[in-house]
Amino acid sequence: MKKNFGANTWLYPMPVLIIGSYDENGTPNAMNAAWGGISEVNEISICVSEGHKTTKNIVERKAFTVSIPDVKNVTEADFVGIVSGNKDPEKLKKTGWHDVKSEFVDAPVFDELPMTLECKLKSYDEESCRLVGEIVNVKADESILGEDGQIDLTKFKPITYDPVHHGYIALGEKVATAFSEGKKLK
Amino acid sequence: MKKNFGANTWLYPMPVLIIGSYDENGTPNAMNAAWGGISEVNEISICVSEGHKTTKNIVERKAFTVSIPDVKNVTEADFVGIVSGNKDPEKLKKTGWHDVKSEFVDAPVFDELPMTLECKLKSYDEESCRLVGEIVNVKADESILGEDGQIDLTKFKPITYDPVHHGYIALGEKVATAFSEGKKLK
Repeated sequence: MKKNFGANTWLYPMPVLIIGSYDENGTPNAMNAAWGGISEVNEISICVSEGHKTTKNIVERKAFTVSIPDVKNVTEADFVGIVSGNKDPEKLKKTGWHDVKSEFVDAPVFDELPMTLECKLKSYDEESCRLVGEIVNVKADESILGEDGQIDLTKFKPITYDPVHHGYIALGEKVATAFSEGKKLK
Repeated sequence: MKKNFGANTWLYPMPVLIIGSYDENGTPNAMNAAWGGISEVNEISICVSEGHKTTKNIVERKAFTVSIPDVKNVTEADFVGIVSGNKDPEKLKKTGWHDVKSEFVDAPVFDELPMTLECKLKSYDEESCRLVGEIVNVKADESILGEDGQIDLTKFKPITYDPVHHGYIALGEKVATAFSEGKKLK
């Protein structure tokens, strides 16, 4: 039997997107967004409403980063989603994250977050809240790379947002039963 | 040290979206898409290119479903992403999934998939591949509900797509260290 819950903004998994940006003075900011995803080849779209400091920064600087937090950074990731950069200028400092400027775009990369998409602004639409970025580079910390030099999910434990319980979940184990790996249909 | 990988369509987590639709004869189809996510309140956006049978169906019927497969359905979920409904009219039959018509929209719900978003078509744009749906109902199987009647992630094990290794990963454990739950910043 299935139960109907009505109209809800629920999906599994939802990402935890830490958007990094600079304001007009070069002050870095970070915010947490869960409404977004890949929208095309080398393109990410995120719903970010107009009032956020992040939105103003990105429209001004034409660039942003999207970092993927891991289980070690869940508290800080949650914090930057709750506290506004408009209200607390010390917001980023409180996370303890260290920022450096991206070599590719005019936006900050955070040392402690293991994976970052560096994006050029393609468009922002206030009406629909839709921020679209071209991914010009993906950066990953060497600590999450396997022997083959690729991102290794036994070393990298990204978190995901749980919209029903307003919590966070870690990615788990590989499911080794894909059809493309030769597994037969039931 | 961080390593640069260049422009890549990588994100963690990426969803596994099983899009259900009917063709002009009422024949159900399912396909697997990973490029998408929540785009606004009660709204989901997915990149689905024009050539898919699913795209034609949705434009015709003005509705679709998005089901979230769990670890039990990973082989079938992968299969519907590889085999085209244009080429194999028996595609859905081979999954063993049973379909029933949604009570809310003109699209099929699959018995075996534990969670489904029932969507009305808002827009489809060939140029950008962007399919936008209004989520009018979320349906969940009673087998994945906890004692409080809500979706329970100890019972529901959604899968996610791994774009780097072209595999699937299960969602893991709750990370109980969110700032909003009282955990202090480091």
